[in-house]
Amino acid sequence: MENFRQESDLLGELNVPVNAYYGVQTQRAIDNFKISGQLLSSYPEFIKGLAYVKKAAAKTNYELGLLDQDLYFKIAETCDELIGGLFHSEFPVDMIQGGAGTSINMNANEVIANRVLEKLGKNKGEYEFCSPNDHINLSQSTNDAYPTAIKMGLLQMNETLVKKLIGIVEAFRAKGEEFHDVIKMGRTQLQDAVPMTMGQEFEAFAATLEEDISKLNNNANLFVEVNMGATAIGTGINAPIGYATLCAKNLAELTGYPVISAPNLVEATPDTGSYVIYSSAMKRLAVKLSKICNDLRLLSSGPRAGLSEINLPPMQPGSSIMPGKVNPVIPEVVNQVCFKVIGNDLTVTFAAEAGQLQLNVMEPVLSHAIMENIHFLCNALETLREKCVIGITANKDVCLNMVKHSIGIVTALNPYIGYKQSTKIAKEALETGKSVYNLVLEQNLLSQERLDEILDPKNMLTPHNK
Amino acid sequence: MENFRQESDLLGELNVPVNAYYGVQTQRAIDNFKISGQLLSSYPEFIKGLAYVKKAAAKTNYELGLLDQDLYFKIAETCDELIGGLFHSEFPVDMIQGGAGTSINMNANEVIANRVLEKLGKNKGEYEFCSPNDHINLSQSTNDAYPTAIKMGLLQMNETLVKKLIGIVEAFRAKGEEFHDVIKMGRTQLQDAVPMTMGQEFEAFAATLEEDISKLNNNANLFVEVNMGATAIGTGINAPIGYATLCAKNLAELTGYPVISAPNLVEATPDTGSYVIYSSAMKRLAVKLSKICNDLRLLSSGPRAGLSEINLPPMQPGSSIMPGKVNPVIPEVVNQVCFKVIGNDLTVTFAAEAGQLQLNVMEPVLSHAIMENIHFLCNALETLREKCVIGITANKDVCLNMVKHSIGIVTALNPYIGYKQSTKIAKEALETGKSVYNLVLEQNLLSQERLDEILDPKNMLTPHNK
Amino acid sequence: MENFRQESDLLGELNVPVNAYYGVQTQRAIDNFKISGQLLSSYPEFIKGLAYVKKAAAKTNYELGLLDQDLYFKIAETCDELIGGLFHSEFPVDMIQGGAGTSINMNANEVIANRVLEKLGKNKGEYEFCSPNDHINLSQSTNDAYPTAIKMGLLQMNETLVKKLIGIVEAFRAKGEEFHDVIKMGRTQLQDAVPMTMGQEFEAFAATLEEDISKLNNNANLFVEVNMGATAIGTGINAPIGYATLCAKNLAELTGYPVISAPNLVEATPDTGSYVIYSSAMKRLAVKLSKICNDLRLLSSGPRAGLSEINLPPMQPGSSIMPGKVNPVIPEVVNQVCFKVIGNDLTVTFAAEAGQLQLNVMEPVLSHAIMENIHFLCNALETLREKCVIGITANKDVCLNMVKHSIGIVTALNPYIGYKQSTKIAKEALETGKSVYNLVLEQNLLSQERLDEILDPKNMLTPHNK
Amino acid sequence: MENFRQESDLLGELNVPVNAYYGVQTQRAIDNFKISGQLLSSYPEFIKGLAYVKKAAAKTNYELGLLDQDLYFKIAETCDELIGGLFHSEFPVDMIQGGAGTSINMNANEVIANRVLEKLGKNKGEYEFCSPNDHINLSQSTNDAYPTAIKMGLLQMNETLVKKLIGIVEAFRAKGEEFHDVIKMGRTQLQDAVPMTMGQEFEAFAATLEEDISKLNNNANLFVEVNMGATAIGTGINAPIGYATLCAKNLAELTGYPVISAPNLVEATPDTGSYVIYSSAMKRLAVKLSKICNDLRLLSSGPRAGLSEINLPPMQPGSSIMPGKVNPVIPEVVNQVCFKVIGNDLTVTFAAEAGQLQLNVMEPVLSHAIMENIHFLCNALETLREKCVIGITANKDVCLNMVKHSIGIVTALNPYIGYKQSTKIAKEALETGKSVYNLVLEQNLLSQERLDEILDPKNMLTPHNK
Repeated sequence: MENFRQESDLLGELNVPVNAYYGVQTQRAIDNFKISGQLLSSYPEFIKGLAYVKKAAAKTNYELGLLDQDLYFKIAETCDELIGGLFHSEFPVDMIQGGAGTSINMNANEVIANRVLEKLGKNKGEYEFCSPNDHINLSQSTNDAYPTAIKMGLLQMNETLVKKLIGIVEAFRAKGEEFHDVIKMGRTQLQDAVPMTMGQEFEAFAATLEEDISKLNNNANLFVEVNMGATAIGTGINAPIGYATLCAKNLAELTGYPVISAPNLVEATPDTGSYVIYSSAMKRLAVKLSKICNDLRLLSSGPRAGLSEINLPPMQPGSSIMPGKVNPVIPEVVNQVCFKVIGNDLTVTFAAEAGQLQLNVMEPVLSHAIMENIHFLCNALETLREKCVIGITANKDVCLNMVKHSIGIVTALNPYIGYKQSTKIAKEALETGKSVYNLVLEQNLLSQERLDEILDPKNMLTPHNK
Repeated sequence: MENFRQESDLLGELNVPVNAYYGVQTQRAIDNFKISGQLLSSYPEFIKGLAYVKKAAAKTNYELGLLDQDLYFKIAETCDELIGGLFHSEFPVDMIQGGAGTSINMNANEVIANRVLEKLGKNKGEYEFCSPNDHINLSQSTNDAYPTAIKMGLLQMNETLVKKLIGIVEAFRAKGEEFHDVIKMGRTQLQDAVPMTMGQEFEAFAATLEEDISKLNNNANLFVEVNMGATAIGTGINAPIGYATLCAKNLAELTGYPVISAPNLVEATPDTGSYVIYSSAMKRLAVKLSKICNDLRLLSSGPRAGLSEINLPPMQPGSSIMPGKVNPVIPEVVNQVCFKVIGNDLTVTFAAEAGQLQLNVMEPVLSHAIMENIHFLCNALETLREKCVIGITANKDVCLNMVKHSIGIVTALNPYIGYKQSTKIAKEALETGKSVYNLVLEQNLLSQERLDEILDPKNMLTPHNK
Repeated sequence: MENFRQESDLLGELNVPVNAYYGVQTQRAIDNFKISGQLLSSYPEFIKGLAYVKKAAAKTNYELGLLDQDLYFKIAETCDELIGGLFHSEFPVDMIQGGAGTSINMNANEVIANRVLEKLGKNKGEYEFCSPNDHINLSQSTNDAYPTAIKMGLLQMNETLVKKLIGIVEAFRAKGEEFHDVIKMGRTQLQDAVPMTMGQEFEAFAATLEEDISKLNNNANLFVEVNMGATAIGTGINAPIGYATLCAKNLAELTGYPVISAPNLVEATPDTGSYVIYSSAMKRLAVKLSKICNDLRLLSSGPRAGLSEINLPPMQPGSSIMPGKVNPVIPEVVNQVCFKVIGNDLTVTFAAEAGQLQLNVMEPVLSHAIMENIHFLCNALETLREKCVIGITANKDVCLNMVKHSIGIVTALNPYIGYKQSTKIAKEALETGKSVYNLVLEQNLLSQERLDEILDPKNMLTPHNK
Repeated sequence: MENFRQESDLLGELNVPVNAYYGVQTQRAIDNFKISGQLLSSYPEFIKGLAYVKKAAAKTNYELGLLDQDLYFKIAETCDELIGGLFHSEFPVDMIQGGAGTSINMNANEVIANRVLEKLGKNKGEYEFCSPNDHINLSQSTNDAYPTAIKMGLLQMNETLVKKLIGIVEAFRAKGEEFHDVIKMGRTQLQDAVPMTMGQEFEAFAATLEEDISKLNNNANLFVEVNMGATAIGTGINAPIGYATLCAKNLAELTGYPVISAPNLVEATPDTGSYVIYSSAMKRLAVKLSKICNDLRLLSSGPRAGLSEINLPPMQPGSSIMPGKVNPVIPEVVNQVCFKVIGNDLTVTFAAEAGQLQLNVMEPVLSHAIMENIHFLCNALETLREKCVIGITANKDVCLNMVKHSIGIVTALNPYIGYKQSTKIAKEALETGKSVYNLVLEQNLLSQERLDEILDPKNMLTPHNK
């Protein structure tokens, strides 16, 4: 049988598990929000973000003379424990809640207060000695502490995402080098175009994803601007003069991020613009990643009735009915993650648009959608790298064969016989099945020697002078 | 130099072009809303919808003794002129406006009033003889007349859309019959699967689109439920008892649609649910159409380095640099229309969610998005049918050749030698390049006679008993 | 130390936990797909759907002479165990996987096969006696069994959703009755319009949501059309003649749903149209629900500087800094769920559009998005009903007071003094602060007696004859 | 009767209007793409972009010795005419077309060629003297010229958008100054929070929009990276060595934008990342703008049964039935534009994801969606500024009155009597209707003097030390 302690708040008394570090307001949130089943306790960077914020606030309060040293030290110590990964199971609030984050802020306030009480030799709930509201939340409101904690969490999470992104870029780049001499047909509009190397193709995958490293970092960088000191609505009520700047400075020192105070706290408090554009940057990455996975699936189509230019490493039998079938399961799952990312970005858009007056109350679902996206993308990137890209092999002969039989190489004749004449050759090749090479010779348009040089695919891979 | 007449309203006096049938409130709308440049005058079915509504309202007012016969007759006559296509240039209001449709409702009220005044031998603007508000808008509000007009417009537009959809279904079906004996590889996950006929593939395109005829019609059918008689907020203030039902009945008679009065007018007035789900049905069509166009582009890829199973009719030279290149330009433009349709559906979603209390003020953009989608889809379907589908030809030999060399046909051996044994054969075929046929014979797994029967692609196209 | 048994497949040998009912292919899926951390084991209706499908398939195979009685009975018995909720922890596949559902289908095949082996007194993995592929998956492919299982799962889940929806409809209806005599101002475009009752307002909430019961049911009803017998691509390869129809009949009997065989199995296999439109129906519900929650938050705004027409039951202290503040946390969380639903609907749209040729490989994320939406919506509806709607109270005096001081009641004068005259009164009232009532009397426009009758709010709540 | 001249291409001969500057390929596009009715001719910046590209290409070809001086001069002269606004009606291609922009590129090539022919004293169509392909398109492909032209167009359009954005920022800022002494209640979660000034509120509107100036500019700045010299697929086939860099340099000189050559042309050619993120930046602006318009509508709600803190300038009578009603029609139309922008952003997302292999064929709809968004946003911003923001007035007394009666001011007591005691006071105030002020005095919690100071709203507008 579970034992309880009784706590009280504005609405009256409520039982809380006797050993819980969280208190009455967390308990109300547990009871009120049985929505997604996805709990704050599964988001360690978010909890660490809360701890950084509470520690920075306590330090600032101490430095401004609002908090005595002993309490400050114990609060700081507790925050360090949270940053170190302890007590995370004490954050059982559903990630999707009402109340604009109050439950999450109070969850942090209560856990820290009760842990401090423990250090003080007091019982849990004896808040007269250390109060969630009057001490842990001192000079703060949910409306500044909560979004700041989200931002500190996202800054950490973005680092992981970028690491995974760098990993996939490097994997594609290595393949680009490996395939530098595999000549193949380039395709536009799914129609045969002109020759290229598979090395160029894979290096382009690397290059296009590489661009998103700075896009993610630049947009994540908006998260360093915080509204600590805004308190309820940005006017700074109940915060002492100088608090906002000093708290930002302290937060910067603690986290190592170049945290600064938002120039206009009334603006900053309801503003969700940084989330919107960071989410967009992830969407952009998802769009590119999905395009690349589509390409990988297309290039590996076959084995006999498809393009069959590359082989993806087989990861599992592909069919419960078709023996021997091997499917591009890894690109497939990455495509699906991309669709989820795009869906969550729309959730972010709706949540951001729904802000009203001095607050955006939809931040919980907004932050959940972004964090879920980071989480899914990290897993997808790692999976794609490890279980697919690094094991890709090229079917060099298949590729070269398609180039040799192609009509698209006629393009290289333009500068010599003109677009109109080239068009005629191409048309005749298509209709008769003859090769471009033979048709040009038959019609005495160029000498064989000249033609050999012009139509050598190797001479089509980079700009050339005539 | 243009001449003006002066009219007045709540805000004061304003000049209106002397010959304009529209009046002061339309003029204000012209001045206020220079947004999209897409004017009501380009949406004839919408104008006709307005005319039907105003005629039905006048008839109801007349029958309930609120309007004298002469005025009713002249209003009805004017509405018939609008239904006949006259005076549409007198509707210059931007399709995207504020005011929840008041400008469009007043545009109709003013044009009809001034045309009636003309019939009465009066000058434009002599509203004491026939007033836009007191006579044309009698027993109505924008909040009932406007959405009802949209719905009457959409019912007409849906008919056109369904006609175009039937056209494309028939075109695919005809191709399905034409290609009934073209045997080809089916593909799942872009990997070779088992044989099928191209007839089955094209008939499936027909069948899947055919399902959307009833989806469109069933969802459009929600538009027959109207809120005439709701007046401002559904309480029916200023409408006489019995008005709502009688007006719906009159509207049904005039339009031929089975129009009925919404059972709860307070609910019906702000409700945009019918738009949301009809827009979703169009989105569903767009999703299917886009998938089909993706398939057409894939199947016609090549000519030498792609699947090359079908040929789309060449519509234009495909490249400014690559001579002889012919691209799948028609499926490409249809894909793009589908993306536009999906985007507009999101606009509808946002607009619908933004309704507040007793009205949804976002109906203008909502109806514009839906009407644009219908318009674009009609054009896309007609273009796809006429300029692409009916001219598609099959490369029968290419298709058969891929079947003959495929490994996927090993699937047909499962019932005879088991999934595990079949897997071994498939694996060996892939690794050695040998055919499934030869491997089975080599290993004495089945007699040649039996094998010939089992591996005949013709025997794989439908269910078989052993 | 964990013990393993060794199993093998196309790719070679692999260790599986010795006591696991699942086998080698499930193990590969566990290894390959570490994506969302949301596992099939948390979706009981989906697992039941798989069990129904496998039981119906076994019954059909038995009736067509392909499976002996003993094996059929043991398979059926095992499926009943799954339907009864047993062994669900044996389904550890990530809901977002590649392979178009093969991993999930094989997970079911393996768990059932190993459980049957146990009943046969054999060891796990002795598949020569009962094979996941040759016996459990007999006459099936992932491409028919998997989507059919999803559909059986969704039919069950929809029933729960509709139950929750009925609950909230009834709660709003009861409030509609309770508030039938609370007279208040109706508002359009957030501006004062004309009077109504709060009963009308809440009944409208009930009525608008009630419409979605049939929308959900009608669209869920599309799920009864299944493609069992399609096998790999709809051609029915390896399925006996008559299998499709008989299997659908058996599935109908087992589940109680009116399951039928799709008329065109080649069409049905890649088609995701039913998911798209069902997801749209949920989106429609979300849009309505979000609008209603917006209204509830608006109507309860205050307590002193807002509309303050209603009180939501206080659920938790509203602020970590502002004492006594109570926030509309329940509508807020429901809004957020709605945004998540709309985001997931976009994921469904993308996944549906990405189908290619004879299959849509994106069904895992598609079905996950829909199931997540149902799950979240059920929780949101229950929470809204229980923790908010049933406890709402009205501030009758506040409401009446606003009606009495309103200008909007001037609307009721239109039929008596005309729109133009009424406009003048309204304008004067606004500018002078005087009441409409007094201005009419001052200007001798109507007798006091007549005016009392016309301006009695009670006479504005329904249509009236003059 | 219209006269024609005959031209020919790959597909055969075709009539072109005899006086048209465009030629056969444009004519095919006119015939093929009757989709949106929105023509290139309505997008002057796009046409100018094409002209800049063609001029820069000609200059580069001339400098590299591929084009003789006379032809180069005449091409350059013609491009200048287009940049000057001439001949725009000669661009009748539908903005939504297939062919990945080939029709638009050829439209430009043809118009320029025929105008040059005219200058040469030749007849239109005598392409042996100046060919659309061999001269105007020399060293180019649609796949480099077309996206580069789009980017040059967008750079120009972004400048206009930013100008309009600056205009609205200044308008809000001016109002912020005007309202610096209007004290009002701040609201979070639509509940009364703590006092602020209306000046702070409007300055926050200015500040939040101001942030988007750099966001738009920074993201538009990605458009300076172009892929001229990529030709068909980025390998530079048919372009001379050094062309890419020199052409970018020339384009920079001509346009004044810091145009550079993309570091990897194979990557750059199919890449649509810059469009995606620029579109996202517009979406972010739309989200903020929509939130602000929601606020304006909320703050101006009333006049008697709403918040009534501000008055928007009346633009038109608000209702066809409710006399004297004035609605917030301008914010309403801006909201709707925002929904359109968000919808178009989704179209961009879909189009970007649909790129395949060496090209993204969906660029026409993608660029159309972005350009439509810029166009609509420019109009919306200008309308909002001119017809709404600059005319807003404040109801100072209404605002102050709400502050005086509020409970939220209890927050200021926290530092003096603690959160728990303050909570009790707030609760009692809510239940009894008494003021916070009187309750504190009654309970002797603070001296009247102290209380007067603490509860003076003026002391709550910025941080204070105790």
